[in-house]
Amino acid sequence: MEKEHFDGYKYIEGGVCAPEGFTANGLNCGINPVKEKNDLGLIYSSAPCNTAAVYTRNKVKGAPIIVTQKHLEKSNGISRAVIANSKNANTCNPDGEEIAEETSRLLADVLGIKPEEVIIASTGVIGMPIHIEPFANNMERLVNGLSTDGNTEAANAIMTTDTVRKECAVEFEIDGKTCHLGGMAKGSGMIHPDMATTLNFITTDVAITTEMLQKALSDIVKVTYNCLSVDGDTSTNDMVSVMADGLAGNSQIAAEGINYDIFKQALYIVMLDMVKMLAADGEGASKFVECKCDGAPDTNTAIKAAKSVISSSLVKCAVFGGDANCGRILCAIGYADIDIDVLKIDVELQSAAGKILVCKDGMGLVFSEENAAKILAEDEIYININLNQGSASARAWGCDLTYDYVKINGDYRS
Amino acid sequence: MEKEHFDGYKYIEGGVCAPEGFTANGLNCGINPVKEKNDLGLIYSSAPCNTAAVYTRNKVKGAPIIVTQKHLEKSNGISRAVIANSKNANTCNPDGEEIAEETSRLLADVLGIKPEEVIIASTGVIGMPIHIEPFANNMERLVNGLSTDGNTEAANAIMTTDTVRKECAVEFEIDGKTCHLGGMAKGSGMIHPDMATTLNFITTDVAITTEMLQKALSDIVKVTYNCLSVDGDTSTNDMVSVMADGLAGNSQIAAEGINYDIFKQALYIVMLDMVKMLAADGEGASKFVECKCDGAPDTNTAIKAAKSVISSSLVKCAVFGGDANCGRILCAIGYADIDIDVLKIDVELQSAAGKILVCKDGMGLVFSEENAAKILAEDEIYININLNQGSASARAWGCDLTYDYVKINGDYRS
Repeated sequence: MEKEHFDGYKYIEGGVCAPEGFTANGLNCGINPVKEKNDLGLIYSSAPCNTAAVYTRNKVKGAPIIVTQKHLEKSNGISRAVIANSKNANTCNPDGEEIAEETSRLLADVLGIKPEEVIIASTGVIGMPIHIEPFANNMERLVNGLSTDGNTEAANAIMTTDTVRKECAVEFEIDGKTCHLGGMAKGSGMIHPDMATTLNFITTDVAITTEMLQKALSDIVKVTYNCLSVDGDTSTNDMVSVMADGLAGNSQIAAEGINYDIFKQALYIVMLDMVKMLAADGEGASKFVECKCDGAPDTNTAIKAAKSVISSSLVKCAVFGGDANCGRILCAIGYADIDIDVLKIDVELQSAAGKILVCKDGMGLVFSEENAAKILAEDEIYININLNQGSASARAWGCDLTYDYVKINGDYRS
Repeated sequence: MEKEHFDGYKYIEGGVCAPEGFTANGLNCGINPVKEKNDLGLIYSSAPCNTAAVYTRNKVKGAPIIVTQKHLEKSNGISRAVIANSKNANTCNPDGEEIAEETSRLLADVLGIKPEEVIIASTGVIGMPIHIEPFANNMERLVNGLSTDGNTEAANAIMTTDTVRKECAVEFEIDGKTCHLGGMAKGSGMIHPDMATTLNFITTDVAITTEMLQKALSDIVKVTYNCLSVDGDTSTNDMVSVMADGLAGNSQIAAEGINYDIFKQALYIVMLDMVKMLAADGEGASKFVECKCDGAPDTNTAIKAAKSVISSSLVKCAVFGGDANCGRILCAIGYADIDIDVLKIDVELQSAAGKILVCKDGMGLVFSEENAAKILAEDEIYININLNQGSASARAWGCDLTYDYVKINGDYRS
């Protein structure tokens, strides 16, 4: 997928290690001996970081979510490291919090930081016993391997059913200082809007207060991660964190204004890019789907309409089958919890092969099935809705529903 | 699937023709010349019927929904006939209402009743042009073929991707009079709770006021049809109607009391049975799934928890794959919009092969995977949740998510 262009921002390599002061590493500590891939990742900052985070709203929460919340409260929002494992979600385990706390202590000891400066996260199977040994036996090796190009190993370590590693970083200027913001993410299934979905760790060298960092994150999550759906299931372990070490040397951002806007846009660019990667790599996905809703009376209405279309199993199957079923798109808008006049809605299907109007004023049009089939044969599909009753817009992202989604999730635990 | 036993009620043959005074017919009028099956069904009552109905809450509504609502308003809730077609939903068509009105007029003329005494319904593809000719050319043949054993032809006529015809009828006593209540239903995809889902037509010879009929229907829909989910998509054309011609000769039910309770229970039995048939015949389904939630603080909480589990794509895939993934069940309860203590929840899996506790006090248990696999290999799966924080209960019904669901919906229109 081509990256979107934004004036004043340059995409760069390095992921979470792109900002000054951050190193990373990842390795296979053997949480599940059968699986050969990396399962333990670490991000470390040489300087204390102001930190913002959002967490899943699922009432069943992974132990690491609860422990991270406690840590950031105790440290007044200061963090120095992220440790994250895959292959076991450490959720619904009686001794889950104990193990997450012990892992944090072990890491803090080796790094020489405080346990409450550790952000901890887990992803994988829910309700499966987890043991401290794989963490304990590999902590020194994990820390000793930290390097400025360790971002790839770290990003590999949080992948589960992901088929593609998700990293992104940008360079930009604030106060004439060169700044960086980078991130890594995982996620493929158990992904649904209206939550801080999946694991996403972001680093930046911009100097910014914890308060403004949290404000920017909460705003951007709303129009990126919360507009993503793969399967309608909201995970128990989702978290997005942003660590800002301030090493870029700009005067600290402590209020709204031009510098805040520049920073917030950088955050948007990186999170947008990762959300689109997550959608394209949705479990079993053969096609990326973006739904854009224009002409809405307000942004929330636009978001809800776009998300409803993206989340519909029937729309997703139609995209998979290359079937220009405009009725299902209208149906999904119709059951969204919004107050609209359905007789004003236009729907257009678009891809690299062209575009075609399939619905006008809420009514199905007779269109060339041949052209529609050509458009839907591409692997990036855009569903453009115009509600024609206002000027607000929003986008939502997802993927098609395929045989492979069913296959992957028919026997995930083994 | 075995029918549930209820004291004082006997399952009988005859479907919608089981009650006194009702006849039915069905035929292929050629709405889609390629498809050979019946596409036009008729139910007729020799006497005027008090009538109750519930409709889809989707804001995009099929033309027949709008026309039926107008008819019953004009007739003060009196109906004489139901006409329903498959193969075209008559939704999002510019001349949809006109065609539904004209069809009603044609039928009323042949039957010698008023157009506003006609309940009209359609199911099939949304946003596809529909023509009056197939209706007009076959109306006399449809009426001439009415008979007391025409229920099967009528039930066949409303099937779409259904693989099984859905009919049920019971016999019971009120005031020493023998009463009957029968129904037919369709539905396989685009089925999601919290709406009057699918098409379901019910007939009875019980004498009951329109007001009490509507009250009973609204109550029973809440614990039957609204607790059903196949794919999370709420259809544009759903409707449940009940016609009561009063020919059983009981003194008219006009208030709550023992007779009302007997009638309401009959309605529950028939609607429950059809809901379970609908779940078992969900598009592509290989397994029927019932989730029972006990120990809830109130009924709404129990319903929401059970529905959330039934609707989860990940739970549905796990059932398909025979994977006892208790984490996904807890996860789905956790994201339901309810206020509960997750650390009290027990989860048990059950089938004809036995039962197994997989979660206790919100934590995963170590259990015999071999036993769990045996239990999940059956084709009727029961997920028993105990919230252990109250005494309310509810059940919800659904099915697994399979390759065939994706296949059926990848190219539904052709």
